Amino acid sequence: MTVAIDAMGGDDGPSTIVEGSVLAAKQGKANIIHVGDQDVVETELSKHESESLPITIVPSNGKIEDTEAPALGLRQKPKASIVVATHLVKSGKADAVVSMGSTGATMASAVVLLGTIHGIDRPAIGGPIVGSAPNQVILDLGSNLDCRPQQLVGFGVLGSVFSKVLLKISDPKIGLLSVGSEEGKGNTQIKEATELFKKSGLNFIGNVEGNDLVTGKADIVVCDGFVGNIVMKLTEGLGSEISKYLTESMKETIDSDIAAALSREIFKVTNPAAAYGAGPLLGVNGISLVGHGRSKQNEIAGAIATAKRAVEVDFINQIQKRLSKTLSTLTENEPDER
Amino acid sequence: MTVAIDAMGGDDGPSTIVEGSVLAAKQGKANIIHVGDQDVVETELSKHESESLPITIVPSNGKIEDTEAPALGLRQKPKASIVVATHLVKSGKADAVVSMGSTGATMASAVVLLGTIHGIDRPAIGGPIVGSAPNQVILDLGSNLDCRPQQLVGFGVLGSVFSKVLLKISDPKIGLLSVGSEEGKGNTQIKEATELFKKSGLNFIGNVEGNDLVTGKADIVVCDGFVGNIVMKLTEGLGSEISKYLTESMKETIDSDIAAALSREIFKVTNPAAAYGAGPLLGVNGISLVGHGRSKQNEIAGAIATAKRAVEVDFINQIQKRLSKTLSTLTENEPDER
Repeated sequence: MTVAIDAMGGDDGPSTIVEGSVLAAKQGKANIIHVGDQDVVETELSKHESESLPITIVPSNGKIEDTEAPALGLRQKPKASIVVATHLVKSGKADAVVSMGSTGATMASAVVLLGTIHGIDRPAIGGPIVGSAPNQVILDLGSNLDCRPQQLVGFGVLGSVFSKVLLKISDPKIGLLSVGSEEGKGNTQIKEATELFKKSGLNFIGNVEGNDLVTGKADIVVCDGFVGNIVMKLTEGLGSEISKYLTESMKETIDSDIAAALSREIFKVTNPAAAYGAGPLLGVNGISLVGHGRSKQNEIAGAIATAKRAVEVDFINQIQKRLSKTLSTLTENEPDER
Repeated sequence: MTVAIDAMGGDDGPSTIVEGSVLAAKQGKANIIHVGDQDVVETELSKHESESLPITIVPSNGKIEDTEAPALGLRQKPKASIVVATHLVKSGKADAVVSMGSTGATMASAVVLLGTIHGIDRPAIGGPIVGSAPNQVILDLGSNLDCRPQQLVGFGVLGSVFSKVLLKISDPKIGLLSVGSEEGKGNTQIKEATELFKKSGLNFIGNVEGNDLVTGKADIVVCDGFVGNIVMKLTEGLGSEISKYLTESMKETIDSDIAAALSREIFKVTNPAAAYGAGPLLGVNGISLVGHGRSKQNEIAGAIATAKRAVEVDFINQIQKRLSKTLSTLTENEPDER
């Protein structure tokens, strides 16, 4: 089991990435290929006792920044770390790629080099957004902004396989994020998607509302990436705002140690992705995981462990099978509905 | 200045509504017409020293429940409190109507009896959703689920007038809720609305993101009612969840008094509407305010005060003027754009 890691990604740069992957190698998670500027990676590796570990370097040249347009970055920097790392998966030299760098660049590299699974136009990003429902997969979180109803059903399949094989939930419930819990409450997209979900053969429980996201009423919450991205960022923003507000409004009542502990607890509720490591790009024809730029060594090692699990359970094949089954169910049923 | 209040609305029923409106009458806010089942309202009024106050009763028969389909409720219960109360505005016997009952029934009554302002298909509901930005108007919060880009510009006008004349913000900034702050980031609806906003003559500042809702980056945040309703309910849900989580996780560190104080503070951040009283239905051709079912006497008196202010500043006329100016700007510019 070999994981290629983008050594240049992440807010803290190569030192943290190398630290995390050395940790993963020590824990016996996987063989690691560091992809990055050779001298930079060598310098970082020399800080650790890594000689006996299954760690190698594949050199790359530069990185695609968060601020760059991903497609343009790919064209202008064909030797950038994420491109070279993803290529290792394509050529079979690695089983998975992990990056804490630009989500856009990781996705663009995956789409161009690995392609998408039949039935998926563009990969989705999914994961928990609230610490009180840490195993809830919400998708899409931002890569598909305009979605046809059938795409939403596709997200249901992607989330379902994620939930089953990576989170070990046996019969995960799928909900559609909408404005009321009763059937029929929602916009046109939701109403049409509801009809498709009902004949999809998936474990569909109907609508869930904004407040249901915090209680984990559904294991998988399906929404388009426009709504998903807004709810994710709102949750993060509310966490920091509530921390700030409590620290200020309670400063006469609680001391600064307790205020700091409160802030840490609130952060856990509103930033579960940090604890989670990284999530697979869902719908890519190969294992590519992207994590939060803020990830520290434990999260990086956790991401490598998730990548390993995804390889072991044959994640891509599971998605392909389930997706093709669902799509054929929808197509078979079609004539009856007309 | 006379306000008709739906005495049967609200989670706590007539006793709380009557209590709140007696308070408003004592404060000299307005003449009050209680609309409700006569014996019920008389019984409640008899509990207060209200003889010398400008309070009258107009009898009605029954109420439309939150659980009823509003349009059906209107047909089946033409003498229901909200219908009779709205009728008083139509006939000029009251200047405004206030209800803490079913939002749907209040809106349906307003649309059927008062009509909408030219250029508005269906009224919007707007207000703050986060206590840290208490004067931010987010709209629509749930009545318009599928919106054309021009409707979003209409919301910008409604929010702008609300912000200027009721919240006294001199040149309120309008933002579009989207997935990135740069122009061009968003779904098709947002991209098209951006083009319209740019030529609208409104004080448009571009996109705001989910996390910007908590800081009040824009005075008015425009979104369709689908997104607005989800973010509003998520905010409320996160507030209760964070309270619960902190009370549990910090129970060894903080005593129960402090935990209760924390919960109250968090509630303030995530439920600003409770403090706010009620908001006008935006785009209705008459003053109709709907507030939270949970409202207590102070919020009810506050809602009556808001109704009074709306009458005094000639709220409806201001909206009509601004809307017709903006719509004509968009129409004038149209040929140049093709």
